[in-house]
Amino acid sequence: MKQIDINCDMGESFGNFRVGNDEAVFPYITSANIACGFHGGDPVHMEKTILNALKYGVKIGAHPGYPDLAGFGRRTMDLKAEELTAIIKYQVSAIKGMAESLGGKLSYVKPHGALYNKASNSEQETRAIIKGIRAIDPELIFMGLAGSIMEEIAKSEGMPFAAEAFADRRYEPNGRLMSRAKEGSVLGDAEVASDQVLSIAKDHQLTASNGEVLEVHAQSVCIHGDNPSAVDILKAIDEKLAAHGIAKQSFS
Amino acid sequence: MKQIDINCDMGESFGNFRVGNDEAVFPYITSANIACGFHGGDPVHMEKTILNALKYGVKIGAHPGYPDLAGFGRRTMDLKAEELTAIIKYQVSAIKGMAESLGGKLSYVKPHGALYNKASNSEQETRAIIKGIRAIDPELIFMGLAGSIMEEIAKSEGMPFAAEAFADRRYEPNGRLMSRAKEGSVLGDAEVASDQVLSIAKDHQLTASNGEVLEVHAQSVCIHGDNPSAVDILKAIDEKLAAHGIAKQSFS
Amino acid sequence: MKQIDINCDMGESFGNFRVGNDEAVFPYITSANIACGFHGGDPVHMEKTILNALKYGVKIGAHPGYPDLAGFGRRTMDLKAEELTAIIKYQVSAIKGMAESLGGKLSYVKPHGALYNKASNSEQETRAIIKGIRAIDPELIFMGLAGSIMEEIAKSEGMPFAAEAFADRRYEPNGRLMSRAKEGSVLGDAEVASDQVLSIAKDHQLTASNGEVLEVHAQSVCIHGDNPSAVDILKAIDEKLAAHGIAKQSFS
Amino acid sequence: MKQIDINCDMGESFGNFRVGNDEAVFPYITSANIACGFHGGDPVHMEKTILNALKYGVKIGAHPGYPDLAGFGRRTMDLKAEELTAIIKYQVSAIKGMAESLGGKLSYVKPHGALYNKASNSEQETRAIIKGIRAIDPELIFMGLAGSIMEEIAKSEGMPFAAEAFADRRYEPNGRLMSRAKEGSVLGDAEVASDQVLSIAKDHQLTASNGEVLEVHAQSVCIHGDNPSAVDILKAIDEKLAAHGIAKQSFS
Repeated sequence: MKQIDINCDMGESFGNFRVGNDEAVFPYITSANIACGFHGGDPVHMEKTILNALKYGVKIGAHPGYPDLAGFGRRTMDLKAEELTAIIKYQVSAIKGMAESLGGKLSYVKPHGALYNKASNSEQETRAIIKGIRAIDPELIFMGLAGSIMEEIAKSEGMPFAAEAFADRRYEPNGRLMSRAKEGSVLGDAEVASDQVLSIAKDHQLTASNGEVLEVHAQSVCIHGDNPSAVDILKAIDEKLAAHGIAKQSFS
Repeated sequence: MKQIDINCDMGESFGNFRVGNDEAVFPYITSANIACGFHGGDPVHMEKTILNALKYGVKIGAHPGYPDLAGFGRRTMDLKAEELTAIIKYQVSAIKGMAESLGGKLSYVKPHGALYNKASNSEQETRAIIKGIRAIDPELIFMGLAGSIMEEIAKSEGMPFAAEAFADRRYEPNGRLMSRAKEGSVLGDAEVASDQVLSIAKDHQLTASNGEVLEVHAQSVCIHGDNPSAVDILKAIDEKLAAHGIAKQSFS
Repeated sequence: MKQIDINCDMGESFGNFRVGNDEAVFPYITSANIACGFHGGDPVHMEKTILNALKYGVKIGAHPGYPDLAGFGRRTMDLKAEELTAIIKYQVSAIKGMAESLGGKLSYVKPHGALYNKASNSEQETRAIIKGIRAIDPELIFMGLAGSIMEEIAKSEGMPFAAEAFADRRYEPNGRLMSRAKEGSVLGDAEVASDQVLSIAKDHQLTASNGEVLEVHAQSVCIHGDNPSAVDILKAIDEKLAAHGIAKQSFS
Repeated sequence: MKQIDINCDMGESFGNFRVGNDEAVFPYITSANIACGFHGGDPVHMEKTILNALKYGVKIGAHPGYPDLAGFGRRTMDLKAEELTAIIKYQVSAIKGMAESLGGKLSYVKPHGALYNKASNSEQETRAIIKGIRAIDPELIFMGLAGSIMEEIAKSEGMPFAAEAFADRRYEPNGRLMSRAKEGSVLGDAEVASDQVLSIAKDHQLTASNGEVLEVHAQSVCIHGDNPSAVDILKAIDEKLAAHGIAKQSFS
């Protein structure tokens, strides 16, 4: 039986400042990428989010980002490899201990925002991230863009890897995500986004911005919690996966 | 044979901003309270400081503080107990994993600055801190002010405790530290500070601001790395301890 | 004809993090307390909010707070008077220049959150704030709690003062705001809150938590933009003021 | 008589964290680029630095940077033009009002670190900065790299411009600064650096990293306060300028 994991960035609120709609999204996802306090999130929201993940039986992932709260980790930053490794270690270590203190287990790490995008095109960035993850816990799974340098390097280094595709983002013909700066890069229509997920899960395909069909092999599909249509998209995904006999469950 | 531990706040520099004189201080201390990124310190300095502690055979402690870089954690903040526990967990967890990744071991936790001062007079604050430490690792030693509520509660809860006194701070007759806002609160004279240490280690006594002699039972003595006389004080301490046959070594 | 000003804290979002519901609130208020980047707000949101104030003909006020983004400026901080004056000057100066660059004019200054609360009970805090405001522009009006030390000191120093009361907060019998930590401190019912405003504007009275009627003389009434009922309350206020022939307009 | 201005980045300390050696440097410089709180500096240090500038008769400049305290503004950040203009306005406005409140006058604006470097190669970045400066005060002088796009665009837009060269940085043959990441990019030898200044002031020339002689027309020369040899370099500059009859004085 075919299966697919649905992941979402969670716990990104910071103090009194809100991002996303975690309470509404948790019932529909199977993996939670939890912010670690650098681009979003704070210790209180981290604990709350870990507890929610446990409550809903959702896999716990770390979602480390650049140290850029003002830019929500969505601006590329030039960090030295040594510093990048250190900030990954810090964030992953913090959430790993917090998850364990609450009876949970950290299963995977997915870099956030501009760090994710940069790493998906950069061997140096990916190696620095992998080095940081492994230093904290060599059993952690690295989640990254299906078919990218991230996947290639992880596999060549024998690191467990979860390949992901995106539910609510448009792809360029070269298989990369269309920049958020471009019109139409975020899919807000529940039908369109859930069709993309179904196509990825069922046929390992998606349709790029120019209509070209791309091959994509993903264990997980990401939906963004700050997408205003997130819950509608998640409901539509559930219906379509069920209708086609595809299981929604976490990767392993 | 009598013995005393010498601890110092280390790794408090942040990016390009400098605090203290770690390189000069490391050879003289036996325990390093390493900043965890909230009042000072950052992932790069944390790694560097952990490596220095390993190089010099110095015990590794966490030094969590208030989330107040601008105030260097020296301003009292009103945090809810839940939030305080969460920020302790976050910081302790982060440094514990980083220390282990470098082949080290986190041994103890000493709260920083205003958090330390508030806890030394507040049962609620102390309990919230202890709760956070234990949640991450129940074997961690809690370092706090000798004779304070911190010691009382730690012992009543069966938590390992390292009582500390201060080398370079003047005491009030009631056994508390004189506020940094007051003239004469920081001892800058190496003779005066090292005499205070000798008296604490040898006779379990120190002389308060009004000349009164106080009893103090401490396993560790703290010196501040941003005291301009830090190295002179440390050298004078070494001489006096040696002259009186007192071993300088870490608590256990 | 009687009149009352309706003010609201605006522009408190920070980067991708949202607070309040500015777009919905602007049409109903006559004065905007605009966050200056310390407890909330950032340069982009400040400009956007100033432009909205100009568009809706709303008076522009500075809303400086403690340097505590994580606590949204709602945690009391112990700042030295010199530092408090300096952070007021910095924030007021920043927004004044930005307002003028967009063709607007900064009219008043209202401290935010815990700084407001502390000042309303502290002569030292109030004097430090007033000193900062005057240093930047002696014509700025100081907005503060009606009947508090803020009003007393401002008047004794000959500083223009706008006394304010609160639409959506419960009062203690001593005339202070009930702490946000207490149940029932925030009024979420549009009828209750708008009745309180009408009573303040029409009869210079409000009913405290114990049922006692307090006298209050206010030129402005504050409603909180992060109150989920904000727009409902504002609509109800409009209806009641109109029904009683009270003009809704800015103080001068 | 020939003349040259000596500028230095000042007031970059943040709270308890130190950068530079302002007290030692102030007697030797004629223009102070004062940090505005984003990459370094805070309201208290800004006031202190403005007062020192007034005491030593040194011209006051704003030194706005990226919002990146952790990276000291030395990491390139991708800000949208609108956001860049807004952060320039915020910082320039803040320091302008503070300078005026102390009886001083803000004369010029020099972008900091990575923002300076990016602007010196980017028309878009330079235009966004100029737009921000002019919006706050059209009489402000823009200080930037001699011979760069900054100079070109400023002149084409009729904006007053102060061209600067660097005392303690090595130049590439193409006239750009050698990256700080490269060995030998910072000149620590007082003789070498002061010779470079003399050559710039006297002959409008400097020698690039490959020995090639470059033409440079600068009204001001920058020395970095966090260069450990800063004071020695400044003394050597004074001697050489005096020996060659070149006046050390601020541009106008």
